[in-house]
Amino acid sequence: MTIVEACGGCMVITEACDGRMVIYAVTIYSIREVHMANNIIVGQSGGPTAVINSSLAGVFETAKELGADKVYGMRHGIHGFLEKNIVDMEEKIRTDLDLELLKRTPSAFLGSCRYKLPEIEGNEDVYNKIFDILKEYEITAFFYIGGNDSMDTIKKLTDYSVKINSPIRFMGVPKTIDNDLAVTDHTPGFGSAAKYIASATKELIRDGLVYDFKQVTVIEIMGRNAGWLTGAAALAKCEDCEGADLIYLPELPFHVDDFLARVGKLLETKKNVVVAVSEGIKTPDDKYVFELTDHTEYVDSFGHKQLSGTAKYLADLVSEKYGCKSRAIELSTLQRCAGHLTSRVDITEAYQVGGSAVKAAFDGDTGKMVILKRVSSEPYICTTDLYDVHMIANIEKKVPLEWITEDGTNVSQQLVNYIKPLIQAELTPIMIKGQPRHIVIDMV
Amino acid sequence: MTIVEACGGCMVITEACDGRMVIYAVTIYSIREVHMANNIIVGQSGGPTAVINSSLAGVFETAKELGADKVYGMRHGIHGFLEKNIVDMEEKIRTDLDLELLKRTPSAFLGSCRYKLPEIEGNEDVYNKIFDILKEYEITAFFYIGGNDSMDTIKKLTDYSVKINSPIRFMGVPKTIDNDLAVTDHTPGFGSAAKYIASATKELIRDGLVYDFKQVTVIEIMGRNAGWLTGAAALAKCEDCEGADLIYLPELPFHVDDFLARVGKLLETKKNVVVAVSEGIKTPDDKYVFELTDHTEYVDSFGHKQLSGTAKYLADLVSEKYGCKSRAIELSTLQRCAGHLTSRVDITEAYQVGGSAVKAAFDGDTGKMVILKRVSSEPYICTTDLYDVHMIANIEKKVPLEWITEDGTNVSQQLVNYIKPLIQAELTPIMIKGQPRHIVIDMV
Repeated sequence: MTIVEACGGCMVITEACDGRMVIYAVTIYSIREVHMANNIIVGQSGGPTAVINSSLAGVFETAKELGADKVYGMRHGIHGFLEKNIVDMEEKIRTDLDLELLKRTPSAFLGSCRYKLPEIEGNEDVYNKIFDILKEYEITAFFYIGGNDSMDTIKKLTDYSVKINSPIRFMGVPKTIDNDLAVTDHTPGFGSAAKYIASATKELIRDGLVYDFKQVTVIEIMGRNAGWLTGAAALAKCEDCEGADLIYLPELPFHVDDFLARVGKLLETKKNVVVAVSEGIKTPDDKYVFELTDHTEYVDSFGHKQLSGTAKYLADLVSEKYGCKSRAIELSTLQRCAGHLTSRVDITEAYQVGGSAVKAAFDGDTGKMVILKRVSSEPYICTTDLYDVHMIANIEKKVPLEWITEDGTNVSQQLVNYIKPLIQAELTPIMIKGQPRHIVIDMV
Repeated sequence: MTIVEACGGCMVITEACDGRMVIYAVTIYSIREVHMANNIIVGQSGGPTAVINSSLAGVFETAKELGADKVYGMRHGIHGFLEKNIVDMEEKIRTDLDLELLKRTPSAFLGSCRYKLPEIEGNEDVYNKIFDILKEYEITAFFYIGGNDSMDTIKKLTDYSVKINSPIRFMGVPKTIDNDLAVTDHTPGFGSAAKYIASATKELIRDGLVYDFKQVTVIEIMGRNAGWLTGAAALAKCEDCEGADLIYLPELPFHVDDFLARVGKLLETKKNVVVAVSEGIKTPDDKYVFELTDHTEYVDSFGHKQLSGTAKYLADLVSEKYGCKSRAIELSTLQRCAGHLTSRVDITEAYQVGGSAVKAAFDGDTGKMVILKRVSSEPYICTTDLYDVHMIANIEKKVPLEWITEDGTNVSQQLVNYIKPLIQAELTPIMIKGQPRHIVIDMV
């Protein structure tokens, strides 16, 4: 957009967005040409996923295609933004190969943060600072790729922009392996994590089958409050795999004694018993299972406890009670950063939600998150849409209780059918010298 | 080989191996044709690997090509063999697709065992039983795919065969992710585990880089006495990855205080500190590090302690001392059964050692293990050879101390150069509905 700004004379000639010239009569003192930049900025926040950079690629490429001047990236989300830790994306992504590598590089390219913006009231200085920086960089649209907490950032920035009557648009791009964002059918990042969990569970079951003695494997899976990821373990059951025997989601209270009794019953007829548990399962008196044992507590800046040790605790209990071998396996961080095993459906949708957010902002939308709308499961068809971020931020979407079996020890076919399309097909990493190649911001 | 056996008359007509007829004069009572079968049997033992079934495919296919009548498989190694838990491989591997799936299926197809044969002296009944079963199935050659303990089985069976003057040949096929077999340059299974460890370490380093705060990640890697696998973490260091900061092998004593001091020093200048440790590191007074904490002890039938908890213990120490976030990540079972990320070099060599063992046995060799001989590292050229199993069984090959840096906190370039060729290229699994497809013996 070019504005011929004339001051001190008698007219202003403005080229509006649609290309028409708008002329206002004013007093002209001098004429100078001012280029009002159409710059955008994008950030990533919260826990990494294997495909969060595909959304970044979608934002970057679409913004350039739609005529953005500069595409800025904020390092370490809004936290880095406040320190003006800002990069020019074109200096970091220079070629089509870079862009392709970006799509296939796990974990946030720009870095992430767990910084939560304070309430607007009483903290206007923080918001003024943000809008000052936005003005300095001539930003017209702000994109934030993240989960629940990140959508809270978009909500607050939108609210403040309304308050100060700023034309800057704020758009949320969904991302979380936890799949716990409201309204959207699912979240980019979940499909690849689910694919990793299903495949790893399958491989662990195969590994456990080799010995001719009784053995119990307890697999601990991420998802502190929502059991979507743990439910993905159910996909290991297929033509060539008997699947996990018990699956415990955090949506229902976990009864240690009942668990032990069921494992004992299974051991009567099976050699290789495999149990998948969410890291967030709690006893009926609302205690995390991992809190039943010794543990070191670490609480992050969102107040989230770091969970770990659930599987170990349960596996030890099994060994003590039944005298058999047990294994505790935490899929841990690998389930969110395994770029070597991603879902092509997921990586494609991650790109699409990034691109759709840019398109919507350029069409004038603000205060919204891009959502995925499933048109059909078989054949799988999914489109994007927009939704008010106020209806999404800070809400956790859990697995519906009717998608968990009545006894609370497995998931229903509905959940399997829901997840299945999301893990389909692969986008293999670009392998260099035997290892997946990544693009790294500090090494560009 | 067909023998026309004539009893009760005056001659025996024998067709020798080379096709010539040999006639002996004897008293003939009756003439009947006896088909002396050339059957072989193969078993798998010890811990699974991602490529152990490629060796099984090599044995099976080569034996059939060289004219074996039946190829039998023993379920759960020598333990299952003693219970005549024996299958006809042709009933389980029926098509070329089955064979291809077998090569790409991790974890022992036939099942495994950790049963160690007793000493011959005083236990002749066990050996007589084994040879009775071999006779019953008309076995001419016996192949055992495994590591140190499995080569002990081949050694003892060979010794007994010499003692009773049995013509049955016994051949060892090397397999172990631990890479601790003597004489052979390396062992099939190691390359794929090393590739998984290097790639996972690289992904974990990337994951840890996203936050703008200090964090220490301790990765626990298999290999109780030999540090080959832990050393593979060094390969994460490449053009696009800074690599692990500290690598501790079990070949040298581990000093907890020195470790903490070094981590503290690193935290002064780095945000993301990554440490790789072997599960088997011990303090100078010969205590496993995991024994410094509470742990549940499980000892397998070879008397091996199940190790786990080293990384957790060290990560907790770091958090306590420096007040920063720490993560303990056990690569655990996945490093040995990740069929979704194998080295093509490894899977090819696994096949070759299986085939070479059969060829050698058919040429009359016995009491030997196939070894890999590295002709050159650059370009990588490797051939197979044979070696007396007595010189291999029960010997553990450790990482040479000169391949560890003097301060004991990393490995030298020599070790990296040694491992690098073994992780090259991929053989992706056959993906069905978004997951790796396996062939499973009980489902055929």
